[in-house]
Amino acid sequence: MLEQLKKEVYEANLLLPKYQLITFTWGNVSGIDRERGLIVIKPSGVNYQSMQAEDMVVCDWQGKVVEGRYKPSSDLMTHLELYRHFTTIGGVVHTHSQNATAWCQAGKAIPALGTTHGDYFYGPIPCTRLMSEAEIRSDYELNTGKVIVETFETLQLDAAQMPGVLVQSHGPFTWGENPGDAVHNAVVLEELAEMAWKTRLINSEVSSMQQTLLDKHYLRKHGPGAYYGQK
Amino acid sequence: MLEQLKKEVYEANLLLPKYQLITFTWGNVSGIDRERGLIVIKPSGVNYQSMQAEDMVVCDWQGKVVEGRYKPSSDLMTHLELYRHFTTIGGVVHTHSQNATAWCQAGKAIPALGTTHGDYFYGPIPCTRLMSEAEIRSDYELNTGKVIVETFETLQLDAAQMPGVLVQSHGPFTWGENPGDAVHNAVVLEELAEMAWKTRLINSEVSSMQQTLLDKHYLRKHGPGAYYGQK
Amino acid sequence: MLEQLKKEVYEANLLLPKYQLITFTWGNVSGIDRERGLIVIKPSGVNYQSMQAEDMVVCDWQGKVVEGRYKPSSDLMTHLELYRHFTTIGGVVHTHSQNATAWCQAGKAIPALGTTHGDYFYGPIPCTRLMSEAEIRSDYELNTGKVIVETFETLQLDAAQMPGVLVQSHGPFTWGENPGDAVHNAVVLEELAEMAWKTRLINSEVSSMQQTLLDKHYLRKHGPGAYYGQK
Amino acid sequence: MLEQLKKEVYEANLLLPKYQLITFTWGNVSGIDRERGLIVIKPSGVNYQSMQAEDMVVCDWQGKVVEGRYKPSSDLMTHLELYRHFTTIGGVVHTHSQNATAWCQAGKAIPALGTTHGDYFYGPIPCTRLMSEAEIRSDYELNTGKVIVETFETLQLDAAQMPGVLVQSHGPFTWGENPGDAVHNAVVLEELAEMAWKTRLINSEVSSMQQTLLDKHYLRKHGPGAYYGQK
Repeated sequence: MLEQLKKEVYEANLLLPKYQLITFTWGNVSGIDRERGLIVIKPSGVNYQSMQAEDMVVCDWQGKVVEGRYKPSSDLMTHLELYRHFTTIGGVVHTHSQNATAWCQAGKAIPALGTTHGDYFYGPIPCTRLMSEAEIRSDYELNTGKVIVETFETLQLDAAQMPGVLVQSHGPFTWGENPGDAVHNAVVLEELAEMAWKTRLINSEVSSMQQTLLDKHYLRKHGPGAYYGQK
Repeated sequence: MLEQLKKEVYEANLLLPKYQLITFTWGNVSGIDRERGLIVIKPSGVNYQSMQAEDMVVCDWQGKVVEGRYKPSSDLMTHLELYRHFTTIGGVVHTHSQNATAWCQAGKAIPALGTTHGDYFYGPIPCTRLMSEAEIRSDYELNTGKVIVETFETLQLDAAQMPGVLVQSHGPFTWGENPGDAVHNAVVLEELAEMAWKTRLINSEVSSMQQTLLDKHYLRKHGPGAYYGQK
Repeated sequence: MLEQLKKEVYEANLLLPKYQLITFTWGNVSGIDRERGLIVIKPSGVNYQSMQAEDMVVCDWQGKVVEGRYKPSSDLMTHLELYRHFTTIGGVVHTHSQNATAWCQAGKAIPALGTTHGDYFYGPIPCTRLMSEAEIRSDYELNTGKVIVETFETLQLDAAQMPGVLVQSHGPFTWGENPGDAVHNAVVLEELAEMAWKTRLINSEVSSMQQTLLDKHYLRKHGPGAYYGQK
Repeated sequence: MLEQLKKEVYEANLLLPKYQLITFTWGNVSGIDRERGLIVIKPSGVNYQSMQAEDMVVCDWQGKVVEGRYKPSSDLMTHLELYRHFTTIGGVVHTHSQNATAWCQAGKAIPALGTTHGDYFYGPIPCTRLMSEAEIRSDYELNTGKVIVETFETLQLDAAQMPGVLVQSHGPFTWGENPGDAVHNAVVLEELAEMAWKTRLINSEVSSMQQTLLDKHYLRKHGPGAYYGQK
């Protein structure tokens, strides 16, 4: 079942090593079929080199395996929570990419410092709060999703305009209209994360780009007034 | 029309991913035929892998498409403004290369710290001022060109001796005698940008190389007394 | 003799250049057959490109060559000391990988700053004390092993839960259940080492992740309650 | 003439792009036949991709071209000065490799911070003084050689034990028994340069490794008591 979505999720997973976002199996991509209420996700701890499209695991909204001989990624419950609350998204990616993870470990949001950032993320990329001992001890992966959603609610962020988050002491999650788009945003996030610490190293006083410039760049690529690209 | 220039612009565009100056479609190269008053530029948002020489867009001095099935790069008006004021240049490149962009985001000129710099750029590589809200809101891409030109006029710089600029909060533009030469300068700029922050990290007190040494290196490669290379 | 182990050690050695952990011959991998009391190790200073599986050197517990036409790696006595005291390990790796070595040269343990670390190393990765002049002057390689063992005893660390160490002013050693697993840990260590200095650069006040989160991540991958992967 | 040496110099030059020590033509390697008093060096500004062994230029001690259709590297006079004063060396390399050049631009010697350094360079790698205006204005390349020699005399360094130098505001020169060995040392220098700034970033108080450890590592690889490798 869902052969097309499996293929899409499989190919999006293969982009992670291609763009050097992961070491070994430190990442996963999922996709959703919202009509049928089913998620397709990478199996847990399976090697990217030997993995095939048919190894992708199909799960329901409760995380129960509907089809597949492997266990799903251990981060499944986080993905599900994101799909539940961010109703416009069609794909989710988790990585431990070097520079984005450094910001996660530092517990700091990535400030919007230039138009590269503004072309994709409409404001600083938020970092979640530390999780409580209780949240870590039980239902950890589900609670990781909940703390992401809480962050977006507290900061009144729109998941469509802010397609990623830094989970503190952990690593980044990104999303998009489909699995490939979510990986695209993961690549951008990693690039922004590296540029941002270099910017601060050159000038420690820089805090943020002009709001007008951020509006200009985000809105020339996104929304009704967009004029970038061929559409 | 302009098949030779299209080929040249196309091939120069392909050098951007080859030299790792761009991620996805974050860059563009153009070339000019000054006799005919026509510009050839990369189409907007088109993938480097599938792009062909015939996809390059031909535009006039007003930015009107003269030939081509695609929309030109959204940065076209910036390129045109540079060609208008820097009358000796034949090619223009824009990228968001990692280290040069970090200097743009930091809002700092790249100081001339060594002979690698002096071999290509005759002094600190300038960073433009912040643009006003009005400049950002309308004719943004044209105004980006204007603020570059203003920077060169204010600092009394010669575009032939300073083949690049840092646009604040944005990214670098470089130029040269032709599209390939402009890309060459983009590669050099990225290298200098990385060396410069590493230099400052090792010794925060370094501010500039000796003027005599800068003269020596720039002039042994450029101008009537040049003795580097085979000519 | 030990053809299977030689092949395993040989292939594990080839992973060092593949994962860019070494320059030239700056690294070595060994494996042990505990039943027969024999070690298989890379020959000293031999090129990775021309090396063959049959060039691996077989030694006994005293470091005497039992089979092989080459001299063993000069670090052999360090490996032997680790096998003697860390009785659960089956493979040892030594490299001068860029970022882990920087921490060795800095004389600092790598703090546990995030879940990438916690997935593999159960706490800060220790750095050995400086060796005395006497320890350096005679039996240097053996004493390098002794100072590693002393560090683990002083800090009451379990080599199975802390599969690596930073030798001060020198470079990292890692180990694992077998030679390939030891290399896997060397790759992870290098990645953690790079993430850690970047984290501190972004936020100099970060000192350690929450103990509960470290427990969660380490124990979901290791030990009786593990639920990561397919087993 | 000197076909064997030309081949050796040619192949050593090709190692510069292979080891990512150079961008474009920013580097050169030479070799010497001391019996015949002839130097073979890369031609100036010639592309590495199209260059052939027969394009190498043969010069005499005065820098006069004895054979070859190209002009020799503009750094020829620096190479000659090094061959004149460092009588045991057989090959010289000049690059603008990223990290070593950052130390040159910072005007700082690279401290001996660990055994990777001690395995090849017997102490801090010196940085030359700034050159005077007169030294820059005439016979610049020859004077670059003279200031390197002066640095070694002032610090009483032995070129055989210190196979490289940082030319302030410029870039590194390295040397060795032959052209390939000189490139080997250029690779090591670049690696040490990167490790050193990372070490200082992690611990700004680190100044130098123990002298005993430096002696141990340098002497186990070099001189009569060496026991590293297969000889």
